[in-house]
Amino acid sequence: MEKIDFAQNSRLEKQLAFLIEIDKVKNIYRKSKLFDGSRFENDAEHSWTIAIMAVLLNEFSNFKIDLEKVVLMLLIHDIVEIDAGDTFLYAAERADAAQKEEKAAERIFGMLDADQRDRFISLWKEFEDKKTNEAKFAGVFDRLEPLLQNYLTEGSTWKANGITYEMVYEKNRLIKEGSEEIWTFVDTLLHKAVEKGYLKK
Amino acid sequence: MEKIDFAQNSRLEKQLAFLIEIDKVKNIYRKSKLFDGSRFENDAEHSWTIAIMAVLLNEFSNFKIDLEKVVLMLLIHDIVEIDAGDTFLYAAERADAAQKEEKAAERIFGMLDADQRDRFISLWKEFEDKKTNEAKFAGVFDRLEPLLQNYLTEGSTWKANGITYEMVYEKNRLIKEGSEEIWTFVDTLLHKAVEKGYLKK
Repeated sequence: MEKIDFAQNSRLEKQLAFLIEIDKVKNIYRKSKLFDGSRFENDAEHSWTIAIMAVLLNEFSNFKIDLEKVVLMLLIHDIVEIDAGDTFLYAAERADAAQKEEKAAERIFGMLDADQRDRFISLWKEFEDKKTNEAKFAGVFDRLEPLLQNYLTEGSTWKANGITYEMVYEKNRLIKEGSEEIWTFVDTLLHKAVEKGYLKK
Repeated sequence: MEKIDFAQNSRLEKQLAFLIEIDKVKNIYRKSKLFDGSRFENDAEHSWTIAIMAVLLNEFSNFKIDLEKVVLMLLIHDIVEIDAGDTFLYAAERADAAQKEEKAAERIFGMLDADQRDRFISLWKEFEDKKTNEAKFAGVFDRLEPLLQNYLTEGSTWKANGITYEMVYEKNRLIKEGSEEIWTFVDTLLHKAVEKGYLKK
């Protein structure tokens, strides 16, 4: 692959090198399928969908939020998977993954000048920690999309991985902390999924 | 495919139906390849990249801009291609495409309640018209990404479609209206591309 190094504007060239690096998320496939079930989804596609979800469903937030920040968090939250890979929400290795992701954030965002590096790392950590209102609301969509994908594909990922209603409930109830209304909807969705045999109790 | 119609919260269900509909952009492939040249890029991936570009390169805007608006424009700008298809920047049918895209915007954004429908259609039109500062700045990235993709893949799309330096210059000089600095960079990039034989004069 060609490189961009015209030594013309080194800040811009650093930013472009970062953009070229993060393009790799387009080759990182998740465990869930597109809504039409045709294939697995990659991290860039996932991030695009949940950023739009946050804008569209922003009226259902439990708190007044800084929407620009939420959208930015969602756009960048999975960049660390370039080094750390996609870890299934229900996998036992989630704790190990956290360490790998921390290193990945330092390497990848570290390609930028200090001001932008620090801003992106701090945004990414804020999302991971789920303590601020923005992180709680952003977290709703990172969870909601795969739930919808599973429902629409008759539980394909749940069935393939032996995921039960109890596991899904346990891992997704934090949706309620960001949006009571969306949680009410998800609660119904999960009951319907059990009723239809997409998810086992 | 399963449907979401629990008749529980009709506004939310309408919004989810819209989100499911727009997932189709993930199957709309563009004429340019990923930076690594491995395959063509789809509209969702393209939109994700240029939204992050706008955030990262926002310091190079010719004007003070509302960044949230720019990002949102970029996230939704290609949704109309679900009905209208992707039209190559250098194709003669660009004028016909505009009409098809207008109809597409009405149908797709029309799935939402009037307040959200009107907001999205107006954002999409603003982007298309390139008259406001936000639209001019957003337009920079819709152009910049394929230029970088072509340079990094040794002019693959330019060569496959007989695109010349003059055509590229003509279609991309509007970058200057959004960012003088990025245009200076692109100008150098195009000269290097000619020098290296990726683009013919």
